[in-house]
Amino acid sequence: MERAKFILDEKDMPTQWYNIQADLPEPLPPPLHPATGKPLGPDDLAPLFPMELIMQEVSQERYIDIPEEVQEIYRTWRPTVLHRALRLEKFLDTPAKIFYKYEGTSQAGSHKPNTAVAQAYYNKKEGIKRIATETGAGQWGSALAMGCMFFGIELKVYMVKISYEQKPYRRILMETWGATCVPSPSPDTKAGRDILAKDPDCTGSLGLAISEAVEDAMNRDDTHYSLGSVLNHVMLHQTIIGEETIKQMEMADAYPDIIVGCIGGGSNFAGQFLPWMRDKISGKKPDLRIICVEPQAAPTLTRGPYAYDFGDVAGLTPLLKMHTLGHEFMPAPVHAGGLRYHGMAPIICHLYNLGFVEARAVHQLDTFESGLTFARTEGIISAPEPCHALSVAIEEALKCKETGESKNILIAHSGHGHFDLAAYDAYLSGKMQNYEFPEAKMKEALAHLPEVSSA
Amino acid sequence: MERAKFILDEKDMPTQWYNIQADLPEPLPPPLHPATGKPLGPDDLAPLFPMELIMQEVSQERYIDIPEEVQEIYRTWRPTVLHRALRLEKFLDTPAKIFYKYEGTSQAGSHKPNTAVAQAYYNKKEGIKRIATETGAGQWGSALAMGCMFFGIELKVYMVKISYEQKPYRRILMETWGATCVPSPSPDTKAGRDILAKDPDCTGSLGLAISEAVEDAMNRDDTHYSLGSVLNHVMLHQTIIGEETIKQMEMADAYPDIIVGCIGGGSNFAGQFLPWMRDKISGKKPDLRIICVEPQAAPTLTRGPYAYDFGDVAGLTPLLKMHTLGHEFMPAPVHAGGLRYHGMAPIICHLYNLGFVEARAVHQLDTFESGLTFARTEGIISAPEPCHALSVAIEEALKCKETGESKNILIAHSGHGHFDLAAYDAYLSGKMQNYEFPEAKMKEALAHLPEVSSA
Repeated sequence: MERAKFILDEKDMPTQWYNIQADLPEPLPPPLHPATGKPLGPDDLAPLFPMELIMQEVSQERYIDIPEEVQEIYRTWRPTVLHRALRLEKFLDTPAKIFYKYEGTSQAGSHKPNTAVAQAYYNKKEGIKRIATETGAGQWGSALAMGCMFFGIELKVYMVKISYEQKPYRRILMETWGATCVPSPSPDTKAGRDILAKDPDCTGSLGLAISEAVEDAMNRDDTHYSLGSVLNHVMLHQTIIGEETIKQMEMADAYPDIIVGCIGGGSNFAGQFLPWMRDKISGKKPDLRIICVEPQAAPTLTRGPYAYDFGDVAGLTPLLKMHTLGHEFMPAPVHAGGLRYHGMAPIICHLYNLGFVEARAVHQLDTFESGLTFARTEGIISAPEPCHALSVAIEEALKCKETGESKNILIAHSGHGHFDLAAYDAYLSGKMQNYEFPEAKMKEALAHLPEVSSA
Repeated sequence: MERAKFILDEKDMPTQWYNIQADLPEPLPPPLHPATGKPLGPDDLAPLFPMELIMQEVSQERYIDIPEEVQEIYRTWRPTVLHRALRLEKFLDTPAKIFYKYEGTSQAGSHKPNTAVAQAYYNKKEGIKRIATETGAGQWGSALAMGCMFFGIELKVYMVKISYEQKPYRRILMETWGATCVPSPSPDTKAGRDILAKDPDCTGSLGLAISEAVEDAMNRDDTHYSLGSVLNHVMLHQTIIGEETIKQMEMADAYPDIIVGCIGGGSNFAGQFLPWMRDKISGKKPDLRIICVEPQAAPTLTRGPYAYDFGDVAGLTPLLKMHTLGHEFMPAPVHAGGLRYHGMAPIICHLYNLGFVEARAVHQLDTFESGLTFARTEGIISAPEPCHALSVAIEEALKCKETGESKNILIAHSGHGHFDLAAYDAYLSGKMQNYEFPEAKMKEALAHLPEVSSA
């Protein structure tokens, strides 16, 4: 009998995060101050983040201890299971072995709590009573609501109004965990009031919601801001995914030939692949392939230039060196809301430019076809984001069928699609469409990169 | 450090179901034929169920092997985790130790697939190509859709029309797994057509949906019918829950003083407590308390007489000896749809009458208060049904706080509430109400018990 699951006991849960910055052959380009164009100092970020997170952002330590208080919360759902997709393999009739590390069993249903819990902890430790954040479809807002609940921190979430109205379940999830959630634009901030004065029916945008959350945090001494992706400390917290998987692949007596995951801001996939990167950077496993999968609607790595740009649409954040479609670029409304982002985690961009990771852009209909195949073999209903990873994993497994190779394919599966069933309905009823990449829109957006972008 | 989770490796998953019928001090009263009032024979059920399930229904074998093909599917999500509710204990400041066996990590989100997969397997083995079933809120329909998907069986689900319209996500879930789901009443059966001719706007009922599914199965040689609760073989398949928990409580070095679960048709809680019943029946653990929790809106054990009655509202099924509120009794619209049933599994009723289990009825608002406490300590969003168990578990834990006793309380937790967030919204916004037990309505319904009811 082949094993279907590789399960770690909680006593074997990793107790340190892995910091790739210690092993990079070249250091990361620094973030720049949006006004001066000069590298940011810790003090510039202190109004928004606790000092321990700011220090993690630039740390060169290889391993950072996971605080006992964070481990204790992690253990309410971690370690997560590594599955072998035996039924998918059989369906595809492939000699490949397909593994998937599944983060959907966290209480919030995704990998996001790995950093939400850590961020809430460090804020609590610094005496912060309240956090403000933004959320689009609600995935990050709900994860942070759960994280703040565990540490008794008040949370205010500015949720893009159109999602607030269309996705009430995510809003209720946040409220069940005790957070306050308002539609953005809101009358609670100057940024929100200004927009509402001009356009009372404005349905909001992620960029505007960021502006509201940042303004909220800047204006109150007891309040910080929190971000669920892109930043180095977020990637760091997610490495527990890959550290667990390394132990579990050893239990399976298998080493991956290909690791595949979806990227939007990059946090789930970086969490999986960064710990494996040690073997690739050191030259121990030069042939290990790491494939980042992005939507054709927002193909940041495959189409965007590598330049300094703002993290948000409104142009308020520090400047990050990353592949970008331009901070004013608005991706088409694909169902994978978590992948609709103009930029990408600087760590992933850096590794891409150093040639350590590959990237591929896929079409929405192909991703849902793969999601349906997965649901009808493994049973799990995947969120639209990991369906991108499934699509390329299936493609690679079918290549193995042609060549007869028995490769080990490891999928970073970020979570379930229980709140995304309307997307499956659209697919099943033939109402879903693909979106070609709008090159002209990108060029227009790139014309508005900040002046220091080519630094 | 106290352990938060007790995890079984898949190689330690039980390979046999436990059949309580082998150990009952008195045998179960037999089901009766609805027309003749005489005990049913296997042939009476053969048009609806495969013979192996019919034999399990009356088997006196203590242990029944779980077929290897069923084990293989079970292993896609089983064994499930036994949690220690350390954060809930701390919040309640109780010396009690609270454990919960959580079935919410199955792909369908509840314990229902334990029997859905087994039933699909035995039907497949008998050459059945198609199954018809009914579903109310969609929990059973989606679990059976998943079970049938695994064995390549076609499934038609008659879903009560009002739920079909109000709960599209459950319908999409079934379709994603490949099932066909129609609103009941439907034009596809005579029962449906007759109602639609009289009342085209009829919103349906579970009784009517059963009639449609049974008619569908009776009229086609390739089609069987399937039921997700009440029957002995369903309870049998669920005993894997308790068999796993026994091993896990040993890992925790703890024996339960109290086991608590919710009952609607009884399948989740019986699945947990039946294996423990061996120790109680044998006299080894006479003090073990087993508490069945039901809603005040449908307090079958606590208020209904023990009598032969139909399983369905329309009066088509065999007669079962059970506590019943009368098959025409329509419970108030509490959010715990799975507990809105006029009858109860005959096995549970029998054990209740023999004095082996207790019963308690609780109010809806109390259950959601407990669900919220659980969400804000353990993080898990519980379905409305297990919130009933949480309510009594918390009450017992608080009694321990008063007395200083360190009891072990084990909760049967049937699944998550990701599709029930509208109920949390109603609770949080103060729009939820309690329903007093309508005694007059029960008396009226009991006046229409079948003639043989007092047999």
